[in-house]
Amino acid sequence: MNTIQKLTEHFSKLPGIGPRQSKRFVYYLLRRDNKFIEELAELLLELKKEVMVCALCNRFFAMNSSGQKMCNICADQNRDTHMLMVVAKDIDLENVERSGVYNGLYYILGGTVAILEKNPDQKVRIKELIKTVEERSKKTGLKEIILAFSVNPEGENTMHYISEIISPLALKYSLKISALGRGLSTGTELEYPDAETIKNAFKNRA
Amino acid sequence: MNTIQKLTEHFSKLPGIGPRQSKRFVYYLLRRDNKFIEELAELLLELKKEVMVCALCNRFFAMNSSGQKMCNICADQNRDTHMLMVVAKDIDLENVERSGVYNGLYYILGGTVAILEKNPDQKVRIKELIKTVEERSKKTGLKEIILAFSVNPEGENTMHYISEIISPLALKYSLKISALGRGLSTGTELEYPDAETIKNAFKNRA
Amino acid sequence: MNTIQKLTEHFSKLPGIGPRQSKRFVYYLLRRDNKFIEELAELLLELKKEVMVCALCNRFFAMNSSGQKMCNICADQNRDTHMLMVVAKDIDLENVERSGVYNGLYYILGGTVAILEKNPDQKVRIKELIKTVEERSKKTGLKEIILAFSVNPEGENTMHYISEIISPLALKYSLKISALGRGLSTGTELEYPDAETIKNAFKNRA
Amino acid sequence: MNTIQKLTEHFSKLPGIGPRQSKRFVYYLLRRDNKFIEELAELLLELKKEVMVCALCNRFFAMNSSGQKMCNICADQNRDTHMLMVVAKDIDLENVERSGVYNGLYYILGGTVAILEKNPDQKVRIKELIKTVEERSKKTGLKEIILAFSVNPEGENTMHYISEIISPLALKYSLKISALGRGLSTGTELEYPDAETIKNAFKNRA
Repeated sequence: MNTIQKLTEHFSKLPGIGPRQSKRFVYYLLRRDNKFIEELAELLLELKKEVMVCALCNRFFAMNSSGQKMCNICADQNRDTHMLMVVAKDIDLENVERSGVYNGLYYILGGTVAILEKNPDQKVRIKELIKTVEERSKKTGLKEIILAFSVNPEGENTMHYISEIISPLALKYSLKISALGRGLSTGTELEYPDAETIKNAFKNRA
Repeated sequence: MNTIQKLTEHFSKLPGIGPRQSKRFVYYLLRRDNKFIEELAELLLELKKEVMVCALCNRFFAMNSSGQKMCNICADQNRDTHMLMVVAKDIDLENVERSGVYNGLYYILGGTVAILEKNPDQKVRIKELIKTVEERSKKTGLKEIILAFSVNPEGENTMHYISEIISPLALKYSLKISALGRGLSTGTELEYPDAETIKNAFKNRA
Repeated sequence: MNTIQKLTEHFSKLPGIGPRQSKRFVYYLLRRDNKFIEELAELLLELKKEVMVCALCNRFFAMNSSGQKMCNICADQNRDTHMLMVVAKDIDLENVERSGVYNGLYYILGGTVAILEKNPDQKVRIKELIKTVEERSKKTGLKEIILAFSVNPEGENTMHYISEIISPLALKYSLKISALGRGLSTGTELEYPDAETIKNAFKNRA
Repeated sequence: MNTIQKLTEHFSKLPGIGPRQSKRFVYYLLRRDNKFIEELAELLLELKKEVMVCALCNRFFAMNSSGQKMCNICADQNRDTHMLMVVAKDIDLENVERSGVYNGLYYILGGTVAILEKNPDQKVRIKELIKTVEERSKKTGLKEIILAFSVNPEGENTMHYISEIISPLALKYSLKISALGRGLSTGTELEYPDAETIKNAFKNRA
């Protein structure tokens, strides 16, 4: 294989990219100047060097000169340490942050648990979550764990799985376990939502 | 125009149907037997004769032999008369009913109010709603009005419009005015919802 | 079932219409005036009375006062009787007519032949086609049969089926059997078409 | 901006990629091992070094050790030098090659000409095309120029533009100028194509 073919193959590994579009990426780059391509290559090589995983929440973050081991949220003294929101992945955290509504801390589980998964503890960071909850309960007075997952079978199964495992700890430390509220989301037309959504929208009316 | 063309034109008035599909309807009917077409014509002629508008909630309902003036929901003695849910149209009511979560009464407003609408009281049954609320407050002990509209600018504008107009009555009769709760709806993935939805999902966590 | 439910069920038989949209049709009609609904019912009842199947090409046509048995195309003295285009259904004929490019006659086969179909002669009007070709060859000097079908496995199978059955007649009467030409169609971008389309586009270059 | 943000911005320049998906690319890479990322960076840096533009047809090609200046098609002694197919871009050429139907040479114009374009000769390689046609006519006995462009206004405008400019040369060297044939393409259903497509499908029937 030549470079065009190899690069096409590598690009086709990116999420959502098929062979046609990855070929189009290569031709696009061939028409760009050297500077752009060199920058792109350099950024790729810097990526793993500069980006660390936060020791507390597992979030990816770009290290700055001070060599810190925590992401900017975990390092922020103004965040409310009584709340810990568990999410599946970085992009979920970013969307919650964008809303500006939540000022607590996060924990990135690293995935979701499929319904018939035999070894869920090897798929997601559940052991580390337990340790984090234990430590935070002792040190920072953790009061609530918010499970923030997509509303689909795998997301709901993950919440169920975490709840069961965490419940002894929750009892021990008087932690509240909650899940994001359900109801009508922006853009929903009333004639379409399923019974579960209507039920929650009715319950959460205000 | 011949019958094929006239019928095509009539079918193209149906919601969501363009000229091509309405032509396809006509050819479909030409291939069906006479019985089906005659039944269809007969049902159309019966429709307006047998279907009435409920005197209480404005819902369309098929009259049975007893000649009642109320739909089966308004006539049902087991419905909770303390709650009145205001919806835009029949299909919205049906979707709420399908969820099985609500046991109160309904009021069909007959549409929504566009944001720059100059004469909203000519577009929706607001005067009749006021009268209904007044009567129900006196007679049946109405306690809550639930505004159940689609989560889009026109739906929200309609809820705002009703709230303002109803508020003196709400004060007078100590009525609670509520809106369906917002949050994650079934199928929502956490990385996509807008800030408003996340905010409500957080507020309504449980 | 009441009239609303029965009518919803009837509408849901129309091609491409599900239960939700057919319900929407019923509510739309309930909001229309009686006149529209009565016209619609009347047109339905007239449909089968006024529309006949052309004795020559099987096309549906609205009969006028003169009581003719042929559609306006078959009755048109200016059409070229040397060419017969075989199509699957009325809508295909209409699209070819709309192009204004063809001035010959048509034959509507009444469907297509699925690839594993055991009794194709019971699915499409093949026997009647043979008879038509025989008669037209004798009387009007038929010279060419044009097979005009969709370019998909079932369309191609149908053309293959007709070709095989018609070939003895074609030999006997020196008829040319042709199929619509293939190539790039309007809107096609050159990077997408399959090999067969490119092959034909190259062969038919001009 | 940190590395994550810079890389996200660079990826969002790729054709068809928005900010969300480019972010997803970055997180995907963060979860991959170093080896994959290093290979990707290396391939990017090799791309411009190893890929040349063919001196004859302008196609991008990966140079092999022999240091040739022509792509494998232009260098292939078995290609028919009497035909030159002009296409807009590399991906179009590749799709024609994939069909296996064409054995002549190519010329990549480098784009298409928008309908109101004032300086088309600065947008596409028309001057170089003229020179190529002139040289090929003298040296290799060029007989036909095939214009192979997408069937849309811009593609047709480009073919028109080339035809006009090339016609004196075509006259001088008795060159035939052709365009890819039009007709039904794979997957086309007969009830949909526009008049132009039907017209060509009828003309190219076979």
